[in-house]
Amino acid sequence: MDEINLFQKKMSDNLIDAYIITSNDPHLSEYISDYFKAIQFLTGFTGDEGTLIITKERAYLWVESKFYLQAEIQTENAKVDIMKSGHAGVPTPMELLKDYFSKDNNKTLGFDSKLVSTEKVKKLFEELPNVIINKNTDIINVIWDKRPNLPFSLVYKLSEFFSGRKYKDKLNDILEQMKDDLIDMHIITSLEDQAWLYNLRGNDINHNPVFLSYTVITPEETTLFINTKKIDNTIDKYLKAENIKVREYSEFYEYLKYVKNKKILIDLDRTNYEIFETLNLRQNVLVNKPNPSTLLKAIKNKAEIKNLKIAHQKDGVALTKLMYYFKKNLSKGELTEMSVAEQLEEYKKKIKGYIDSSFETISAFNGHASMIHYSPTNETNSKITGNGLLLLDSGSHYMEGTTDVTRTFVVGKLNDKMKTQFTTVLKAMIALNRAIFLKGTTGLNLDILAREPIWSIGMDYKCKTGHGVGYLLSIHEGPNNFYWKQDDKYRAQEILPGMVTTNEPGIYVDGSYGIRIENELLCVEKNKTEFGEFYGFETLTLCPIDLDAIKVSILTKEEKEWLNDYHQRVYDEISPSLNEEEKEWLQEYTKKI
Amino acid sequence: MDEINLFQKKMSDNLIDAYIITSNDPHLSEYISDYFKAIQFLTGFTGDEGTLIITKERAYLWVESKFYLQAEIQTENAKVDIMKSGHAGVPTPMELLKDYFSKDNNKTLGFDSKLVSTEKVKKLFEELPNVIINKNTDIINVIWDKRPNLPFSLVYKLSEFFSGRKYKDKLNDILEQMKDDLIDMHIITSLEDQAWLYNLRGNDINHNPVFLSYTVITPEETTLFINTKKIDNTIDKYLKAENIKVREYSEFYEYLKYVKNKKILIDLDRTNYEIFETLNLRQNVLVNKPNPSTLLKAIKNKAEIKNLKIAHQKDGVALTKLMYYFKKNLSKGELTEMSVAEQLEEYKKKIKGYIDSSFETISAFNGHASMIHYSPTNETNSKITGNGLLLLDSGSHYMEGTTDVTRTFVVGKLNDKMKTQFTTVLKAMIALNRAIFLKGTTGLNLDILAREPIWSIGMDYKCKTGHGVGYLLSIHEGPNNFYWKQDDKYRAQEILPGMVTTNEPGIYVDGSYGIRIENELLCVEKNKTEFGEFYGFETLTLCPIDLDAIKVSILTKEEKEWLNDYHQRVYDEISPSLNEEEKEWLQEYTKKI
Repeated sequence: MDEINLFQKKMSDNLIDAYIITSNDPHLSEYISDYFKAIQFLTGFTGDEGTLIITKERAYLWVESKFYLQAEIQTENAKVDIMKSGHAGVPTPMELLKDYFSKDNNKTLGFDSKLVSTEKVKKLFEELPNVIINKNTDIINVIWDKRPNLPFSLVYKLSEFFSGRKYKDKLNDILEQMKDDLIDMHIITSLEDQAWLYNLRGNDINHNPVFLSYTVITPEETTLFINTKKIDNTIDKYLKAENIKVREYSEFYEYLKYVKNKKILIDLDRTNYEIFETLNLRQNVLVNKPNPSTLLKAIKNKAEIKNLKIAHQKDGVALTKLMYYFKKNLSKGELTEMSVAEQLEEYKKKIKGYIDSSFETISAFNGHASMIHYSPTNETNSKITGNGLLLLDSGSHYMEGTTDVTRTFVVGKLNDKMKTQFTTVLKAMIALNRAIFLKGTTGLNLDILAREPIWSIGMDYKCKTGHGVGYLLSIHEGPNNFYWKQDDKYRAQEILPGMVTTNEPGIYVDGSYGIRIENELLCVEKNKTEFGEFYGFETLTLCPIDLDAIKVSILTKEEKEWLNDYHQRVYDEISPSLNEEEKEWLQEYTKKI
Repeated sequence: MDEINLFQKKMSDNLIDAYIITSNDPHLSEYISDYFKAIQFLTGFTGDEGTLIITKERAYLWVESKFYLQAEIQTENAKVDIMKSGHAGVPTPMELLKDYFSKDNNKTLGFDSKLVSTEKVKKLFEELPNVIINKNTDIINVIWDKRPNLPFSLVYKLSEFFSGRKYKDKLNDILEQMKDDLIDMHIITSLEDQAWLYNLRGNDINHNPVFLSYTVITPEETTLFINTKKIDNTIDKYLKAENIKVREYSEFYEYLKYVKNKKILIDLDRTNYEIFETLNLRQNVLVNKPNPSTLLKAIKNKAEIKNLKIAHQKDGVALTKLMYYFKKNLSKGELTEMSVAEQLEEYKKKIKGYIDSSFETISAFNGHASMIHYSPTNETNSKITGNGLLLLDSGSHYMEGTTDVTRTFVVGKLNDKMKTQFTTVLKAMIALNRAIFLKGTTGLNLDILAREPIWSIGMDYKCKTGHGVGYLLSIHEGPNNFYWKQDDKYRAQEILPGMVTTNEPGIYVDGSYGIRIENELLCVEKNKTEFGEFYGFETLTLCPIDLDAIKVSILTKEEKEWLNDYHQRVYDEISPSLNEEEKEWLQEYTKKI
């Protein structure tokens, strides 16, 4: 009997007719630890986003377009229908549920309310008013024999040299904002916010140096709910010295039951329904706002900025070595997507302070790159031969911070159209990079600077131009980003000095190839005049942009100047860490055009 | 006894302690007819925006920065304090009222609720909860001896050649939208919306070809409230043929009292408090949304577009003649701001189909131009001599539509800094003009294309980059515009094919000079690919951009090409209507750079 059949049997035992399984953890993290990978256990699909609905009769797995191919291959042996989200004629999970329950209302819908967002559950109650809801029967745990343990990693502390700011000072900033809104209690569920607040890091989620925890802040005290085995003597002393009360992670939901009549600041976008309901039923007033820490941590402090520059230089050395290796070995015809990614990891491991890659490396040759976020697996791994483009999107965690960079390398010969497109992506990237803007400008304003050059040749990329990046934390951290579409709920975030945001326009030709050039930008003060304060960007990323792909004739004087200055800087900062052969090569690949 | 004293005496007779006088008419029009110019009557100030508060002791007139100077000069003989809106330390009208009434709550605030917006009155009730409100004592009418009559002009009809669309078809579009929201009744107060709907025009407001009216639409019938003396036989027949019920303008408020239990679509941003309150008290449900006609009329139809191109060509001939006249006569030292504006009017009057200027011409030499919207008066009229810049912002109504154009001309010699600034404004204008953008792009996205070049030299203009323009209607008509700041209430409007928007970046140096180049842009379809529908702009305005002010060395190849192409088009379309001397001159001023 396979896993889905087994699941259906247990559903039947529990009188449940349909069950929703998400790719969430209780903190609604973007990436999750193995313990929570129920979709993978049930279907084989390893992508980090998906929704599985199992009914008594069938199973349906919704995946985003970047996972269409991967999901088809990985679920071959499971009895599950792949639902291509966004495809014409494919119902959404809600549409399917409405249809399923429309025939007979006297049926039960199940899910684990710790693993579904508040908003989604509210929608379920709204749209399925007559359906019986069973939100506390955890079937997964019953049938998952060899379920991995909850993640366990010792927590470590960032010294002030790395964090730049004491816990107490960060806490005071938060307390200040709580005071302004007359808040009695602030509950933080987001793992990055907590890691930032305490200057602590862990390793509970692959590529994400966080630890599972909840935090409750009142004007009087701060309580950290964490598996206390993760705390060694040093950390224990630190927490005591800072008056941080520690309780077991497993006690959090019990604790919540005694929270009554409080005015609570909580970010419902990061809150699972179980927490919401527990608080909501006990006369608490919930003030739904982004966590104050989210904006606070997005503005990197002086020490963080200084360190980040070191991190990017280290990363640039590994990447430049990889680029040399790639160019030198390409003609042998032996390179594969995976071997390139592995070689990059080899170079990184030799660098002092390297901790881990910050996400699974995207090494995508030709058609694979048009999936935007494809990572090679044993099943899909391509040899890199013939003509085309290799898109390499990688990132690292160093003690000095987190990086995210994409370069696209020429394989064989590029035709004129592809060169024009590559150069247009470069023009787009440079346009945003060179922007000077008045205080108050948002990512909603700025996005078009990168997008318009690509629109002007009748193309577009469907994703954001860029996202915020954490500091030795998550690779995707808001509230800053570059995106042209208005959010219905939030005003766009103004881009402020100290914020780090990626600049990664691209062109993706379905099934053929993908081009992306990604640098990280640090927002800095530029100019103060009678008209106001003006900001601009400093580039953090250091790695050559492949000159073999550039059509010089369509670059303006200013664009050429930008590229020449950038390449000069890459040479100056990277070459001291290279051997003679690499150095000579780098001189050629950073030459003036 | 002066007017303000007299007003204060009548306030006292009516037991009113403070009174608010606005620059509104009952339709909350941007420009108003003389009948409603109470602020001018009381203070002498002729600007089209201001708020006057008269207390028992004093009088305060709030004006925007563009009117600071004008207000000081014009109110010299009135006992009124000029309140510079936005200046540090200057309270807002609301702040002043709160302070005034804080000392003694048992006081009365007066205003005419037909002349204040719903939102403002709601705010007054909210912020001054204990103050006695008297909202129906019209003191102005009592003391204004020689008050002008309510405006009177015969209404005329636009033939389908000019309007491009029948009343019935427009009405059906509106009824369709009412049906979607299950609306029983739609009330239109905005004068432009009504003129557009009926294909009628009037002359009730200076430079605005509208007529005072209200419209009530139900699925069964349409009622037009208008002074029926404005309707001659032809129009009467037309209205009857179209089944449009006509009632007296003066009966509208009486009519409202009998509207009960209806679901009413009404744009409260264009609705005075008297209307709101009357409807609100009678169990009506108000659906507050922009009038459907506002978006419908912003998208010009084929006939309107064809005509607009003719209108702009006509306007271009007058402007080009004026530019030649200006350049030729400048050295004589006799030109003044007013003489230039009058000469332009002379040229326009000779053109077939010219009706009126679409706003008071801004002819502003040097320091005057830094006020952005200064118009010369006998008191301020400047001689144009020495060195500097004349900013000329003018517009026209032709039977073929409305225009709005700005050119800035060199006087004497420009220094290098001013040339750089002029050229930067040109670069800004060209950048927006050349944009190619995906369907869905808004003015909030596009604005930065024009603004960033000016930001990059540490400057800014505080106004929008551009506004929508009506068709033989108002010079400022939304919902389309170019502006980088998010509105709290409305999502930014996407720019759609058929919309006409001005493109007018500028640089204003306080007290010294102003530079503005303004073309009108028609949004057009450009390209349809697998990535979506792409739009762009076609330039409607035809008049040389003063080559004497351009620093060619800082223009890119593409910018030079744009300018050369534009000037070639100006020559081709305008020269056939010029005499030989003018033609020869135009050739020089449109030559390739």
